[in-house]
Amino acid sequence: MPIGRKVWAIAEGYIPGSSHGPEPALTSHEAACLLNAGDRDAHIEIMLYFSDRDPVGPYRVVVPARRTYHLRFNDLQEPESVPRDTPYSSVITSDEPIVVQHTRLDSRQAENALLSTIAYSEA
Amino acid sequence: MPIGRKVWAIAEGYIPGSSHGPEPALTSHEAACLLNAGDRDAHIEIMLYFSDRDPVGPYRVVVPARRTYHLRFNDLQEPESVPRDTPYSSVITSDEPIVVQHTRLDSRQAENALLSTIAYSEA
Amino acid sequence: MPIGRKVWAIAEGYIPGSSHGPEPALTSHEAACLLNAGDRDAHIEIMLYFSDRDPVGPYRVVVPARRTYHLRFNDLQEPESVPRDTPYSSVITSDEPIVVQHTRLDSRQAENALLSTIAYSEA
Amino acid sequence: MPIGRKVWAIAEGYIPGSSHGPEPALTSHEAACLLNAGDRDAHIEIMLYFSDRDPVGPYRVVVPARRTYHLRFNDLQEPESVPRDTPYSSVITSDEPIVVQHTRLDSRQAENALLSTIAYSEA
Repeated sequence: MPIGRKVWAIAEGYIPGSSHGPEPALTSHEAACLLNAGDRDAHIEIMLYFSDRDPVGPYRVVVPARRTYHLRFNDLQEPESVPRDTPYSSVITSDEPIVVQHTRLDSRQAENALLSTIAYSEA
Repeated sequence: MPIGRKVWAIAEGYIPGSSHGPEPALTSHEAACLLNAGDRDAHIEIMLYFSDRDPVGPYRVVVPARRTYHLRFNDLQEPESVPRDTPYSSVITSDEPIVVQHTRLDSRQAENALLSTIAYSEA
Repeated sequence: MPIGRKVWAIAEGYIPGSSHGPEPALTSHEAACLLNAGDRDAHIEIMLYFSDRDPVGPYRVVVPARRTYHLRFNDLQEPESVPRDTPYSSVITSDEPIVVQHTRLDSRQAENALLSTIAYSEA
Repeated sequence: MPIGRKVWAIAEGYIPGSSHGPEPALTSHEAACLLNAGDRDAHIEIMLYFSDRDPVGPYRVVVPARRTYHLRFNDLQEPESVPRDTPYSSVITSDEPIVVQHTRLDSRQAENALLSTIAYSEA
């Protein structure tokens, strides 16, 4: 069953860098949980926005039909890795309806989430 | 008074397994708080989506009229228990309007929530 | 400027009781932040829903024009106090548009929030 | 690509003051992440609402086209700084569509968020 929207935004984003703070800060990472409950593969593009330079992207991800994908921003590599210690926002567009939830994970405790919120979706 | 929607989705889901991390990780569990404020019982079906296999379900729950139900994903058994250490998403459909909130509980402190967010709802 | 909706729901609710867990559990409390940005006082009614008995309420609150009110569920007294160690949900209705955010506070640290999410609103 | 809404509200707000609690309470701060993904600069006005006095503002911020801005309420100065130990709410209006996410940061750990939720938006 298709459910969701094709345009999403997460205004908050921040990946701590290795030069800041104690070790726990290093182990958390940003994630976007992407659900494609429909019958067709979803081709997804992610643009990253910054405070002091032009947007970067698109990053491309395919979420197959009837599958979920927990995307970690830390793992994005093309066209470039996500800078640490830098506030950013993301806009996520898909050719099929998807549902997006923003989550920050703490890898010290087997993927426990520190926070989570539904992303903003556009009708 | 009926309030809510009939189709909901929670993109983020993860139940830590016994093989990962220290003991606190074992005591948290995923929950979906389901409110049926209407005058008719709500018959609810939950489908679970994974990253590498077909969806599982439906799991079936009845929330009586004018009642709330704090469903723990850890407790789901039919058609199969929810795998640990595995990202999943859920789609929740109801024959009556309901309101769904996603919560992760920490049972060490008498049901204190670690995070909570309204689920995505479809008009 | 009026902003908001007249019907809101918070599916998740739980106030730890004195018989459970260590002291920190006792110091957190549930809150609903109610914003009335309009030019007329908002007369608000709150109904509480439980898993095993009929709803309780209405609890009545007035939020004056152009004011905010951080309501603590722990402080509700009429028609009865909110039971501890008991899952509940709330439906909040207002005669004027308001905005509602669900927050759990930790009083040990000067009102630091442990979690927060926008409530569900009905058009 | 423009995405978002022009009117937003965050019902929950609280900045701990120096006279309350242990040091960790002093290091957290409120933030609103503001994304302007469009091609025109967004001129933003913020009004703060209190429980016992008239609203204060507008505070003015410009978020350039295709930029994000992580606004800290602690840093607002004109027309006056945000009082500590005081519950408040905020209404954020923009002449261009933006996306707003409410976040509370913990500066002890390189900007780790303690909580985050999408703000309420008005169509």
